[in-house]
Amino acid sequence: MNGADDLVHTLLAGGVEVCFTNPGTSEMHFVAALDRIDRMRCVLGLFEGVVTGAADGYYRIAGKPAATLLHLGPGLGNGLANLHNARRARSGIVNIVGDHATDHLANDSPLTSDLEGIARTVSHWVRTTRSAGTLRTDALAAIDAACSPPGQIATLALPADAAWGELPAHQAPLAPDSMRPAIAYRPLDAAAVTAAAQALLEPETLLLLGAGALDEPALEQAGRIAARTGCALMTEFYTAKLSRGAGRVVAPRLPYAVEPTVAALARFKRIVLVGARAPIAFFAYPGKPRRLAPAGCALITLTEPEHDAHAALAALAAELDASALAPAHVAARQTLSPSALPAGRPNSDGIAAVLSALLPEHAIVVDEAVTTGRSFGPSTVGAAPHDWLSVMGGSIGFALPCAVGAAIAAPARKVVALEGDGSAMYTIQALWTMAREQLDVTVVIMANRAYQILRGEFAGVGAGTPGRRATDMLTLDRPTLDFVSIARGMGLEAARAEDLGEFARLFGRAMSQTGPVLIELVIG
Amino acid sequence: MNGADDLVHTLLAGGVEVCFTNPGTSEMHFVAALDRIDRMRCVLGLFEGVVTGAADGYYRIAGKPAATLLHLGPGLGNGLANLHNARRARSGIVNIVGDHATDHLANDSPLTSDLEGIARTVSHWVRTTRSAGTLRTDALAAIDAACSPPGQIATLALPADAAWGELPAHQAPLAPDSMRPAIAYRPLDAAAVTAAAQALLEPETLLLLGAGALDEPALEQAGRIAARTGCALMTEFYTAKLSRGAGRVVAPRLPYAVEPTVAALARFKRIVLVGARAPIAFFAYPGKPRRLAPAGCALITLTEPEHDAHAALAALAAELDASALAPAHVAARQTLSPSALPAGRPNSDGIAAVLSALLPEHAIVVDEAVTTGRSFGPSTVGAAPHDWLSVMGGSIGFALPCAVGAAIAAPARKVVALEGDGSAMYTIQALWTMAREQLDVTVVIMANRAYQILRGEFAGVGAGTPGRRATDMLTLDRPTLDFVSIARGMGLEAARAEDLGEFARLFGRAMSQTGPVLIELVIG
Repeated sequence: MNGADDLVHTLLAGGVEVCFTNPGTSEMHFVAALDRIDRMRCVLGLFEGVVTGAADGYYRIAGKPAATLLHLGPGLGNGLANLHNARRARSGIVNIVGDHATDHLANDSPLTSDLEGIARTVSHWVRTTRSAGTLRTDALAAIDAACSPPGQIATLALPADAAWGELPAHQAPLAPDSMRPAIAYRPLDAAAVTAAAQALLEPETLLLLGAGALDEPALEQAGRIAARTGCALMTEFYTAKLSRGAGRVVAPRLPYAVEPTVAALARFKRIVLVGARAPIAFFAYPGKPRRLAPAGCALITLTEPEHDAHAALAALAAELDASALAPAHVAARQTLSPSALPAGRPNSDGIAAVLSALLPEHAIVVDEAVTTGRSFGPSTVGAAPHDWLSVMGGSIGFALPCAVGAAIAAPARKVVALEGDGSAMYTIQALWTMAREQLDVTVVIMANRAYQILRGEFAGVGAGTPGRRATDMLTLDRPTLDFVSIARGMGLEAARAEDLGEFARLFGRAMSQTGPVLIELVIG
Repeated sequence: MNGADDLVHTLLAGGVEVCFTNPGTSEMHFVAALDRIDRMRCVLGLFEGVVTGAADGYYRIAGKPAATLLHLGPGLGNGLANLHNARRARSGIVNIVGDHATDHLANDSPLTSDLEGIARTVSHWVRTTRSAGTLRTDALAAIDAACSPPGQIATLALPADAAWGELPAHQAPLAPDSMRPAIAYRPLDAAAVTAAAQALLEPETLLLLGAGALDEPALEQAGRIAARTGCALMTEFYTAKLSRGAGRVVAPRLPYAVEPTVAALARFKRIVLVGARAPIAFFAYPGKPRRLAPAGCALITLTEPEHDAHAALAALAAELDASALAPAHVAARQTLSPSALPAGRPNSDGIAAVLSALLPEHAIVVDEAVTTGRSFGPSTVGAAPHDWLSVMGGSIGFALPCAVGAAIAAPARKVVALEGDGSAMYTIQALWTMAREQLDVTVVIMANRAYQILRGEFAGVGAGTPGRRATDMLTLDRPTLDFVSIARGMGLEAARAEDLGEFARLFGRAMSQTGPVLIELVIG
């Protein structure tokens, strides 16, 4: 047994059973170990941003980390943006990054880089293992770190000689699942529960939900608290995984832009934060506020992301004597007869109506539809129950890889990736992995043929109206991207819709079958 | 005039007149400035690896830096791998990376990251400007750093408030080209020239050429020295820009793999290094040497990359009384009648014969053909004069972006990108920029439908023969990538060749017209 074999066994012992990978020479022993060891599912991505984004999506659905296998510092660099997103999503990931053999580093061969330096910019935990003999201890520490609530990025650099080094013959591999870490939340503060309860008994109080407080049981507690106190419920604009749809408690998202967020918050005198942060602007704009809660509004923190938000909401409901109440704000099922589906020119409301009508039960929606998708929320609250995943770190190129990971984590659920055309291009290689693994993902490209968000931001930052040269930097026409052709080139079934009727037909067909499909929806 | 305007004027003053860009909100003022200021050519990439790789290619051909415009830390992260390659190529680049407004950073909004930490891993020079008032000084320092021989990566973080901040009305913009840095080489060491001359007068001496010693005038001096001393000439395996073809002095490349490199160097007792490094293995392999010069071989350094290699070779030729000699090892033109072009199943020799016969004068060849391309060298020495650019840092995904930058730098020259199918997928978005800018680039995808190099490396590291699961990680079939469809989806003319005859026909047609074309050459 060499170090690489022991590493794969140790990952399995820690409950890590999926590895998203884009390997190179220094990772060949790890790849060879896959032939000798069952149970580790290895999924190839053709670009490292696919690999790290998939690990993010996997964690959000599976609730436990996947591993990535990356090639040296530059390979990690290619995965950095989606690791940033994963970090902001508080997704646990175990990155295994191959490095040169220890005695070769000083030779500074072309691929040598500041691997640990790159890793530290996005990781909560970084270590370079010394040898095959230290690999097991270090891998277990990496898994522990990744599983620390609410989920962390752990990066283990694996020198090639540690992978190929032989271990003593008497050393037996760890058994699968024998070393799964216990989840150790930060202890709740009883005083915080009391303070939150007091605030909620006052009028004009908002219960703002974030990390850990977005799934069905947490929302139900929030709904009970709202039933008792009349408080408002909202979530942060971005949600790592929000349970939505008929039968679920509705907590509307905060808006994206500064002015509507200020307006939405204006009436509140108190905001109780459950895994959420004080509302801030996504970007700063000249002359606009950065902190968006009204002046004098009290911010009461019930939980940080490191706490058990379920337990805190249950304790809060108990404190308010609300545990037995029926939750408020439960969404009713809204159905639409097929003949009532919208037709005509695609717009946000029409697209949302199609989604709402046709999303199957327990679908996973990965939302990077940017401008087009911002207003999908209200129209889809009555859809079949589903989960809604958004790009937490704001670095676009997230949705297609995230959909890959979500589909690997939940093969029985339909995954729908709502994707902007600009965003799609950053990690378009994910389509190939969907085709190779025959994942049940429907990709909808909202093709407005521009970085549409930047047209708004251009004005928002006070830059006026873009002229010819600026417009060139904001548009994706000339030439027009043909996503049907691109998708077919990567082995995916694909079709184009230019009106809502055709979109509803294609989307309905995709929902009724399994396997990967791409729909390019042209938004004029 | 705001900070962004002043920055664009200052870049132009320093001779930076091309900006490869993938902007976001924090860069909108820079984009707006483009509408007000002529002369700055801005080229949009749909992924940041395209942007940074293009800046590398631009420097190699233009001999001066381009700017990049990137969006925050994650955008810089997406460009990191090709910045690694550029650093290894010693290409000067001025990265302008937008950041949040200074007073917004502490709010830790979703896109906030360790921007300087990411930058430091690949940059020689990093600074965050404080305000619009410090921007000019900082931009000039960045340009100076980028132009420091042999070329450096300079990264200037640009907080949004520095871009939008107004400057005093009396402050006039700098005039174009008014502040171009002087190139200050490290002074030559006369003793090094003498020591090199003495070594070259001994038998079994190799003159190994690297940074600064690869263009036509440098090669001619090397050829004169060889004519006088009978020394052998070689170049490093990777060359940032090697002048080749008929009429040029031939210096064969060192091989890639360990064993043939050891064999090629075995006879030498002395190696004189001109901008080159002591030969080392690209990767370490169990039981194989890392340092590849024979035991006891003397290594004599004539120049480091920071020196003026031209001046050093001229001084060396003078010291050897060789300045007036005709250079040795000059390649003769090899022509092939059209009827003698190879046909049949594609293989490396046949492809090289087609290239050699059809490359036009002064073509720029960007080589990331990996396994297929390794042996192209000997067969193309008699082609029309051309430059050969290779991936210096070994991080694949380099060639398509580099071709973009080379074509922007030299619009009158034909650019040929020789690309592996695996490598192509990392930065495939570059095809769109070729189409948008109508660049005169012919892309040849060598489609062996595998990470073919890794099949060799798998055995090379002693991992044996890949089994089913390992093979899955090394192959690109299932599904097969259809590059013709992908390219057309990005607006490129494209065709497929499955035999050498068809390849010669398509390649010949591409050489006879201008504009971007992709040829997928299937290698069975």
